[in-house]
Amino acid sequence: MEFYPPSLVRLIKHLSKLPGIGQKTATRLALHILRSSDEDAKALSESILEVKNKIRFCSKCFGLSEAGPCRICLNKNRDHTIVCVVEHPSDLAALEKSGAFKGVYHVLHGALSPMNGIGPDDLRIKELIERVKQGGIEEVALATNTNVEGESTASYLVQLLKGYPVRVTRIATGVPVGGDLKYLDEVTLRRAMERRESRFCRD
Amino acid sequence: MEFYPPSLVRLIKHLSKLPGIGQKTATRLALHILRSSDEDAKALSESILEVKNKIRFCSKCFGLSEAGPCRICLNKNRDHTIVCVVEHPSDLAALEKSGAFKGVYHVLHGALSPMNGIGPDDLRIKELIERVKQGGIEEVALATNTNVEGESTASYLVQLLKGYPVRVTRIATGVPVGGDLKYLDEVTLRRAMERRESRFCRD
Repeated sequence: MEFYPPSLVRLIKHLSKLPGIGQKTATRLALHILRSSDEDAKALSESILEVKNKIRFCSKCFGLSEAGPCRICLNKNRDHTIVCVVEHPSDLAALEKSGAFKGVYHVLHGALSPMNGIGPDDLRIKELIERVKQGGIEEVALATNTNVEGESTASYLVQLLKGYPVRVTRIATGVPVGGDLKYLDEVTLRRAMERRESRFCRD
Repeated sequence: MEFYPPSLVRLIKHLSKLPGIGQKTATRLALHILRSSDEDAKALSESILEVKNKIRFCSKCFGLSEAGPCRICLNKNRDHTIVCVVEHPSDLAALEKSGAFKGVYHVLHGALSPMNGIGPDDLRIKELIERVKQGGIEEVALATNTNVEGESTASYLVQLLKGYPVRVTRIATGVPVGGDLKYLDEVTLRRAMERRESRFCRD
């Protein structure tokens, strides 16, 4: 590293803090930035600051937003009686991309994980209950991940929401579409068989 | 992409211009930057600009430097009679890391590649000849890459340097240390066999 000028070494150090970027990739990226045009480098540099300065959490659903409530919460064409609960903004983006959901969201910003010291107070759970209390919500669809943390968060929310007049649903688990049974883990397969759906019935 | 705020979309766009960074990785990086501390984001943003503003080419060897001649060219302990010719600053760094070379360098900033419209005038070849003309150089070690472009650049330089009182050498080709013959391409193997070295001789 001492073969590069100090400012380049600093850039490499900062880039290698990014996830999945090791020293070698960081060096390649830094040399690319050095070779790129002044405009490109400036645009990259500025948009890093812009993202940090502009983006806030939506005051209603805690998704990402640049001002007050987000575009989904403000959209009158969406069904505000169904709230889909997700762990992260990226999960929200994945669901939006699928086009499968036309309601509104609530982003928890994590999942319960006692091992990592993340309890209910570290997530936006209080705010979800507050939204349900305010009324107008008929269904809470839990779409936390289907790993241990996501499942326990979902179970916790089911318990918590029992006292309120809302339907609580959970995103379905099963074989992914286009999936090959032989490559799938046993737990998924067992769960998918247990929850098999009837397609044809003689009676 | 429209599920993210505009400033985040812009950052993703700029990040995905980097080599080896697709849309998915760029999104992951952008979300990481959004979650990281203000200091980390600021440091990354500033060091991008710093690299672009500070780093220049060494006035002698055209390696990277923050002011005038680079540290290698200024180092009196290095052998200034041997000049190692490389394609890029990253090749210089690789050689420095190996500790194999104690002379000075000359960075061409590319290799001849008529297919991509890169001719002798696009490289720092004129400057190399100028350095040789000025005298004091006894050996020019050609360490351009061993691919087609690097080899033709080396051949071209050999022709060009014929008229000057310098020894011209070429970095050795062969089986990499720790290499497994069965995974090596035929061209390398053939070359390595042709250039086999005698280790023991009965006479």
